Amino acid sequence: MDYNKLALDLHKKYKGKITTKLRDEAELDKTKLSAYYTPGVAAVSKAIADDENLLPTYTWTNNVVAVVSDGSAVLGLGNIGPKGSMPVMEGKALLFKHFADIDSVPIVLDAHSPDEIVAAVKTIAPSFGGINLEDIAAPICFEVEDRLKAELDIPVFHDDQHGTAVVVLAGLINAMKVVGKKLEDTKVVTIGAGAAGTAIMKLLHKYGVGSIIAVDSKGIIGDSREDLNAEKKALLNYLDTSHSGTLDDAIEGADIFIGVSKPGLLTKEMVAKMAKDPVVFAMSNPLPEIMPDDARAAGVAVLATGRSDFANQVNNAIAFPGIFRGALDNGVKQITDEHKIAAAEVIASLVESPTAEQIVPSVFEEKLVPAIAAVIR
Amino acid sequence: MDYNKLALDLHKKYKGKITTKLRDEAELDKTKLSAYYTPGVAAVSKAIADDENLLPTYTWTNNVVAVVSDGSAVLGLGNIGPKGSMPVMEGKALLFKHFADIDSVPIVLDAHSPDEIVAAVKTIAPSFGGINLEDIAAPICFEVEDRLKAELDIPVFHDDQHGTAVVVLAGLINAMKVVGKKLEDTKVVTIGAGAAGTAIMKLLHKYGVGSIIAVDSKGIIGDSREDLNAEKKALLNYLDTSHSGTLDDAIEGADIFIGVSKPGLLTKEMVAKMAKDPVVFAMSNPLPEIMPDDARAAGVAVLATGRSDFANQVNNAIAFPGIFRGALDNGVKQITDEHKIAAAEVIASLVESPTAEQIVPSVFEEKLVPAIAAVIR
Repeated sequence: MDYNKLALDLHKKYKGKITTKLRDEAELDKTKLSAYYTPGVAAVSKAIADDENLLPTYTWTNNVVAVVSDGSAVLGLGNIGPKGSMPVMEGKALLFKHFADIDSVPIVLDAHSPDEIVAAVKTIAPSFGGINLEDIAAPICFEVEDRLKAELDIPVFHDDQHGTAVVVLAGLINAMKVVGKKLEDTKVVTIGAGAAGTAIMKLLHKYGVGSIIAVDSKGIIGDSREDLNAEKKALLNYLDTSHSGTLDDAIEGADIFIGVSKPGLLTKEMVAKMAKDPVVFAMSNPLPEIMPDDARAAGVAVLATGRSDFANQVNNAIAFPGIFRGALDNGVKQITDEHKIAAAEVIASLVESPTAEQIVPSVFEEKLVPAIAAVIR
Repeated sequence: MDYNKLALDLHKKYKGKITTKLRDEAELDKTKLSAYYTPGVAAVSKAIADDENLLPTYTWTNNVVAVVSDGSAVLGLGNIGPKGSMPVMEGKALLFKHFADIDSVPIVLDAHSPDEIVAAVKTIAPSFGGINLEDIAAPICFEVEDRLKAELDIPVFHDDQHGTAVVVLAGLINAMKVVGKKLEDTKVVTIGAGAAGTAIMKLLHKYGVGSIIAVDSKGIIGDSREDLNAEKKALLNYLDTSHSGTLDDAIEGADIFIGVSKPGLLTKEMVAKMAKDPVVFAMSNPLPEIMPDDARAAGVAVLATGRSDFANQVNNAIAFPGIFRGALDNGVKQITDEHKIAAAEVIASLVESPTAEQIVPSVFEEKLVPAIAAVIR
């Protein structure tokens, strides 16, 4: 299937992917116009001005999430700017609508620093019920999210970090059932310490995984490294930092490999050095850290990738629609680590009998959104 | 009709007024998902990153207008802030959709200075095909609009100013047919020098009206006034500035009174001092500068107000949907005075035989939007 051509054709034919419509689909006559706009609307504005808690009672803010990006880390395309990122953000808005019936508006920012991004999002925040940050490059994404979470009274969620981390945790919970290990007792090696990698490590640490060794482009992230930026230094709190060397050193005896880095970094020889029944999440896109044939040949027990045409796709769309559905419906202002772990556990529970070929539910599983939403409260 | 109660009930029942939906209403299967989102969407993003002119070809920006307010001058309610203003902005988005099939997003700003407003709008501008500024207090609104028009490559239109001015000009063109005068030869007196008043004066001057005397809360705006702020000093270029005194002095011999000020300011005695067949646009809301019974008794030949329950409602919704429809469809980046005059003339032309009771078309006139859009090019 030539998805590129299909994508260009469909986007051109429909002139984009989302549109607006009126909630009240009955005839808009003069009387209704006078209620939805002047003079009647003044009573609604006055009610909200008197009690701002009424905003979601009377306006669409109860159901609208902004998908916000500066276009600095878009898919595998890198920093293509706000206009280039728009199709992805509008696509995310389409997913919000389709999977969770959440109204969503793509907001792409002509901004280049954390200060500018934070200022713009804070200024427009009263317009929305939640903020989904998307495709903002690390390390800026960490500062932006932290500041917005601290300063806004609506949920702020950087999906590249936390959506990925939630689905990875869900997949690992089920993969451990397949191989008969306890996740808390495993040794995990990660490669890639960007937005997704960082969030995965933090969530696994929070979940109780005992040993996490992280590798970046310079080698194992450990106490002896002198080239670490502030974000990576902060990561040391979550890691087994007694090691040094390369991925080849780290992988020795590992139960789980988690890659959010580059194609082909995990060789068959490395897999052979892992513990019995190795579990590999090779999520580099579009080409994974190891291809399925090689993984199988090397004895990988459970393989997950980021691709829809292989088994076990780690797809953020499994998690974020339900997480925001729950936050909006239950008035949740902060999405916490506890929420993320609860979401991962409920996602895992929707696969009745996990196998090597199915550790996560399909994104089309209809129970997903209500089940996740129920635990975000 | 108790519009207040109806408004509160309807807003609560439908939980707001607008929602989103997918443009492609066919089943969203796995194949389409891979075209609208990853991996296919990457080709669309890359195409736009390579040529930003393709943004409207492939995304909804071809049809989406932000309705932007800081909530500083909302209806008759004043500075009620962004959240309080949301029902009005969402209402405007409803009008955009209903009358011109334009997708529209209410964006309310937690901002308090021109710098903050301009910065936020500039930052989010790549997300939209046009910016409708709304209910921003004078004089900040002038600076904000001027700066955004200069710095953005999409149309920026402060509807309180220009929408009002266009409909007033359209109404005056037809009112002159009713009383048999030539607009260029008339003497016009305005009261109220806020956003709407200022824009009306400028557009009438541009149209060629010979004598415009403006009155504000301190009296006639003329050369002898020493208390004028920068915006009002700039107005002197458009006015007959040789007079001084009060509205009572200015009104002597005037052909046209235009009020965008406060209830009851125009007395029957003042009307009696106007020229033959006086034309009165008394647009203070909800109570006009003179009530229809008094106007009739005093000999007003043509009366227009801002109210939907009186004849000749000066309603911005007559103008702005068509103006934006034309700007979006015809790739117009700046809405000029020439556009506004052309819009006013085409609006006026849609009333076949103007009478004292009908000088502007109904907002429900179906020819309005296509006719206006055709001249915005």
